[in-house]
Amino acid sequence: MRAVVYKGPFKVDVEDVPDPRIEHPNDVIVRVTSTCICGSDLHMYEGRTAAEPGIVFGHENLGVIEEVGQAVTTLHHGDRVVMPFNVACGFCKNCLAGFTGFCLTVNPGFAGGAYGYVAMGPYTGGQAEYLRVPYADFNCLKLPEGQENEADYALLADIFPTGYHGCELADVRPGETVAVYGAGPVGLMAAYSARLRGASQVFVVDRVPERLAKAEEIGAVPIDFTAADPAEQIRDRTNGEGSDKGVDAVGYQAQGHGTDGEQPAAVLNALVQTVRPTGALGVPGLYVPADPGAPDENAGKGMLLVAIGKLFEKGLRVGTGQANVKRYNRQLRDMIARGRAKPSFVVSHELPLDQAADAYDKFDRRVEGYTKVILRPAA
Amino acid sequence: MRAVVYKGPFKVDVEDVPDPRIEHPNDVIVRVTSTCICGSDLHMYEGRTAAEPGIVFGHENLGVIEEVGQAVTTLHHGDRVVMPFNVACGFCKNCLAGFTGFCLTVNPGFAGGAYGYVAMGPYTGGQAEYLRVPYADFNCLKLPEGQENEADYALLADIFPTGYHGCELADVRPGETVAVYGAGPVGLMAAYSARLRGASQVFVVDRVPERLAKAEEIGAVPIDFTAADPAEQIRDRTNGEGSDKGVDAVGYQAQGHGTDGEQPAAVLNALVQTVRPTGALGVPGLYVPADPGAPDENAGKGMLLVAIGKLFEKGLRVGTGQANVKRYNRQLRDMIARGRAKPSFVVSHELPLDQAADAYDKFDRRVEGYTKVILRPAA
Amino acid sequence: MRAVVYKGPFKVDVEDVPDPRIEHPNDVIVRVTSTCICGSDLHMYEGRTAAEPGIVFGHENLGVIEEVGQAVTTLHHGDRVVMPFNVACGFCKNCLAGFTGFCLTVNPGFAGGAYGYVAMGPYTGGQAEYLRVPYADFNCLKLPEGQENEADYALLADIFPTGYHGCELADVRPGETVAVYGAGPVGLMAAYSARLRGASQVFVVDRVPERLAKAEEIGAVPIDFTAADPAEQIRDRTNGEGSDKGVDAVGYQAQGHGTDGEQPAAVLNALVQTVRPTGALGVPGLYVPADPGAPDENAGKGMLLVAIGKLFEKGLRVGTGQANVKRYNRQLRDMIARGRAKPSFVVSHELPLDQAADAYDKFDRRVEGYTKVILRPAA
Amino acid sequence: MRAVVYKGPFKVDVEDVPDPRIEHPNDVIVRVTSTCICGSDLHMYEGRTAAEPGIVFGHENLGVIEEVGQAVTTLHHGDRVVMPFNVACGFCKNCLAGFTGFCLTVNPGFAGGAYGYVAMGPYTGGQAEYLRVPYADFNCLKLPEGQENEADYALLADIFPTGYHGCELADVRPGETVAVYGAGPVGLMAAYSARLRGASQVFVVDRVPERLAKAEEIGAVPIDFTAADPAEQIRDRTNGEGSDKGVDAVGYQAQGHGTDGEQPAAVLNALVQTVRPTGALGVPGLYVPADPGAPDENAGKGMLLVAIGKLFEKGLRVGTGQANVKRYNRQLRDMIARGRAKPSFVVSHELPLDQAADAYDKFDRRVEGYTKVILRPAA
Repeated sequence: MRAVVYKGPFKVDVEDVPDPRIEHPNDVIVRVTSTCICGSDLHMYEGRTAAEPGIVFGHENLGVIEEVGQAVTTLHHGDRVVMPFNVACGFCKNCLAGFTGFCLTVNPGFAGGAYGYVAMGPYTGGQAEYLRVPYADFNCLKLPEGQENEADYALLADIFPTGYHGCELADVRPGETVAVYGAGPVGLMAAYSARLRGASQVFVVDRVPERLAKAEEIGAVPIDFTAADPAEQIRDRTNGEGSDKGVDAVGYQAQGHGTDGEQPAAVLNALVQTVRPTGALGVPGLYVPADPGAPDENAGKGMLLVAIGKLFEKGLRVGTGQANVKRYNRQLRDMIARGRAKPSFVVSHELPLDQAADAYDKFDRRVEGYTKVILRPAA
Repeated sequence: MRAVVYKGPFKVDVEDVPDPRIEHPNDVIVRVTSTCICGSDLHMYEGRTAAEPGIVFGHENLGVIEEVGQAVTTLHHGDRVVMPFNVACGFCKNCLAGFTGFCLTVNPGFAGGAYGYVAMGPYTGGQAEYLRVPYADFNCLKLPEGQENEADYALLADIFPTGYHGCELADVRPGETVAVYGAGPVGLMAAYSARLRGASQVFVVDRVPERLAKAEEIGAVPIDFTAADPAEQIRDRTNGEGSDKGVDAVGYQAQGHGTDGEQPAAVLNALVQTVRPTGALGVPGLYVPADPGAPDENAGKGMLLVAIGKLFEKGLRVGTGQANVKRYNRQLRDMIARGRAKPSFVVSHELPLDQAADAYDKFDRRVEGYTKVILRPAA
Repeated sequence: MRAVVYKGPFKVDVEDVPDPRIEHPNDVIVRVTSTCICGSDLHMYEGRTAAEPGIVFGHENLGVIEEVGQAVTTLHHGDRVVMPFNVACGFCKNCLAGFTGFCLTVNPGFAGGAYGYVAMGPYTGGQAEYLRVPYADFNCLKLPEGQENEADYALLADIFPTGYHGCELADVRPGETVAVYGAGPVGLMAAYSARLRGASQVFVVDRVPERLAKAEEIGAVPIDFTAADPAEQIRDRTNGEGSDKGVDAVGYQAQGHGTDGEQPAAVLNALVQTVRPTGALGVPGLYVPADPGAPDENAGKGMLLVAIGKLFEKGLRVGTGQANVKRYNRQLRDMIARGRAKPSFVVSHELPLDQAADAYDKFDRRVEGYTKVILRPAA
Repeated sequence: MRAVVYKGPFKVDVEDVPDPRIEHPNDVIVRVTSTCICGSDLHMYEGRTAAEPGIVFGHENLGVIEEVGQAVTTLHHGDRVVMPFNVACGFCKNCLAGFTGFCLTVNPGFAGGAYGYVAMGPYTGGQAEYLRVPYADFNCLKLPEGQENEADYALLADIFPTGYHGCELADVRPGETVAVYGAGPVGLMAAYSARLRGASQVFVVDRVPERLAKAEEIGAVPIDFTAADPAEQIRDRTNGEGSDKGVDAVGYQAQGHGTDGEQPAAVLNALVQTVRPTGALGVPGLYVPADPGAPDENAGKGMLLVAIGKLFEKGLRVGTGQANVKRYNRQLRDMIARGRAKPSFVVSHELPLDQAADAYDKFDRRVEGYTKVILRPAA
């Protein structure tokens, strides 16, 4: 089959690779109809991880079941399904507690697995014609038949639940004000989720005009952090209080306010300033324990200088970690199916698989409006 | 009246000061029968804060109502009451949400007030014969008449609820394993609270043999951090997993494992190593945004180097801040009254007020078993 | 001052009564600008309670502070405020736990107090020019100055929080389906709240076409229970499952499906049929322990025949009781102030106080579109 | 193999039946070492259900894995495991939400499955030498090797989690007072669980002196309901307030206070009287939608006369339904393994499988101290 293969820094090709096959009775094989390029794919693409050439990318996958392992009980040939980016077993201590992003079974020696990602287990990515899905009864979420809402449902694999997870980590409740740092796809999904959960006002902080415009479109208040200190801008709009809650949808590759270059803790520290005492921070944005491209030695080991004194004085709570997609994808699917949510407003391109190399290049350079790309292998 | 007055670094005297009086119709005056010396009093005593000479110390107060303001409705002369160390109004946004440690009314310009503490509002301390209590209907918790359980109830003002708060912040649930760093009074109260909440096993990390022995007495597993890396010791006792939850009962004046001198983030980083993926950390231990005695410039501004990368990878949650005593003191009182809890095991000394200077000196130097001192002004 | 006085069954008059005055240092006097007639006022109006002639009605009150007791600390002459229908102290065991509808202080011998209501304590109603508010710092919620959103804010006294409370009792979460029985003002507020909380679909059950049309306007699915069994209609629209959650916004004066006359448990039992296994029911609709007008002797004592066997088999949870308005009114106010909510769509009439007698008559007979009336004493 | 077979009302025999075998790749076969007789087995034994002769009883099963299906990934021959009485798939909507007692997969057309129970699916009971366990990775909970704590662990299949579930449904929190109705095995487990969760005082209501003595042994206050109205007795011991929470561990075969014969709603209504306003009731005790032996026609259809008016006035919450054992059994296992819990105090007899007929007879007649029997097929 055809698949997107990593060839080395800044290079992917669409190549022939072996077809996946049923390896375990609980597997299914899915014919992929939609598979998104994720911001986190770019970490590998840019050569900023330990990923070796040859890996097939793709952890945001939706498709139609082609083949069913003999132990699978509730799935059938032809079912349309979307898979969380996390691979999970469904029965370990963490899965049972709802922490399916930290499964103890699928990636021995580490808590958590994923498709097509370095160090996340032996699961080939889905930017390809077919995908093997383990523990299929658990990992497949059934979708309505047909092709309706395809782009919306594709976002259930990762960024819609990840944005929602940011709100869950921050315990966003009806009536609250929320500051979301980052207006990339995850930040926009976090802002959108905050609205769906009843936030009375959502601020979205970024510096890219197009992204801020997108935030405004969904009812959020755009905050351009190049214009003035974003914490101050938000305090000014909340009677000097600060927001009730905050979401970090940026992570360690943050740009500081009023500086050049990466400042890995810039967003965390800005949130400590932004959120009012007794508030909470949700951190779905990625931080890593080892970063070869870090600006300094400590950051290279994931050690960041954080305003702990102020954070404690304010009595803030902080929730972190990658999304447990399985915990949210059913209810978010139902919101899409019943017309309550339409997250595909973030999708900028839907392209055939063969255009993957070009799409990676443009998405990485953030040119020509490449904000969120869906590849359509079956198109 | 007689009161403990701060005279300057390492010096307090018991002196005559003006009697407190009703200043507002919602005040009461309490004749203090028990008032504890707190570890946080030592920050001021050691001259490591902005506290000016002349301040009357004492925020852990219990006594009998002597005089009642005309607007007070449920308290009467002769009622035995204990007061949270936090002064709170009961009706602001934060108090209503249960965050009485962050009251917006009682200390304008700051979220939170306390008795006898620098920068915590105009509330004279209770290491004295009498104490003025504002918003008395809200701040006084009634106790059974008489003198029974006096030492237990006195701990309701601060350290029992503060230890319990550590467990609440870490969301300690029945059956879980919990690592408590610090076996001082708050650490022991946290460990004791974890047991009361049904933890299956509690580890207490310290290096002082007497403290570790105390932890063992209440059913915890003592971990001497000078013997080996404490995170490793705890992983060894939890099938390599690490503990489900962790509590930092030390704060910024932490001693690092295998080093000399203070390492402000030592306990936080040890907890990141100790707690298993998906776990949670409760941080009642104090961190401050300005520390004149800090080991380096960043720490002086409350900026600490924290293992954010690993914390995120593990998906940990962190809760911080001083205890909202009012949220817990009623249920903890009932546990004492019904014989379910007996926290006074941490009390080492009960002394007349006149011996305060000597008690401060010995408690500060941690000599002669001075672990927790209650002054008895009316004795 | 002028006030709405109960004269006997089906009769109220607007009469001169003594002005309220500060009785306690924590009181304020409010000049009432908006005061709603509530469905529960009709219980008294119809003579179906123990209310004696002479009582001044009105528990849904909004106005401007005219006079301030000397112990009040955060309110000033001229502040615009809205008061929960529940009178509460703010410091008893129940208030501290957030159950301000069950205050133990303000109505000795009973858990809960209210303005202008039989057996709810000595608090004169606010369908009058002025109102005395006890424990004013606690009971008054400040509003933005001016007259903007007056009708929306007036609903914060009762029906908006009461509808929201129904969702809270049923634990309505984003993405869920919710069945609300009753499309009166509280039912519509419950449906509206469910939407604000992110419900994917809301069904509203009633038989009055105008009410069902109103439900449809706010995005709910109208279910006419005279057309077919409502539980069946809802199962048909949820793949045979039933709704995730249910709200009873009707109470004991329910009309059964396919019958004439009151069937006090009709809605409860319909909800047991409607909600799927593992679901939850919120019951803000009123049930009473003594009903002189009940259809049978058991119902007269509040004993109703309920499908407990089926309820248990489905593992349903049930939350009941009058709303703790204080728990919700701040966040709902913020939703109104920031343009996120506009509950006044239920208001049919805004009338001068002098037209109260006519308004009661028409509202009681549900004629001429009288669905929710606000009296404007200061107009 | 040998198994306990139902022969008709009041008759079971130990007979030869076919050995179970792997029917699906996710199955395992367990050699049963401990299997308890449950109070709910007696419903079938007494002929009070639709159970047909021939059914093999036994849903509280512990044993050692004998054979492993080819799709099973984490279990091996020789592993000691205990199974929840509920059979569950682990991936349906209800299982994912933690409601494993209401699995939608294993018993088509009904929410929930179990071993050896009428209408609960095609799962042969475990009062036998061997047991087939479907979805084995999900349904088996691993235990420490060997035979230590065998009786304690056996109770993890049902009654310990069921008692704990009662506390969970009632949201029992540290410091609260709890009234448990029923001092049978489930009631004692509920009382014991309440203690483990930090309740300050637990009342246990029954009339059998031996049971009440057992309650007292574990630190509860025994309340003999034949001596006086139990609600009154409990109010007298709680300053007239009533208990904070209540658990119904009796169900529909309740005996009323001061009466003869069954009164199906007696305990529910007693709890409404017993629990204080704002409290909560947990109802793990069984209620059924059809009872051929009911005292009246309504009760026969599961319709009971309940004090809804008073329940609403008090604002009580009610949680019902059979336990989701999988949600609790891991943490309860850990409490046993670490010496924090020792539930086997309720076990009166451990007998060879061959004595099952006699054990059923005596347990049903509650003679000779038969309170909880464990059969040991491998003994």
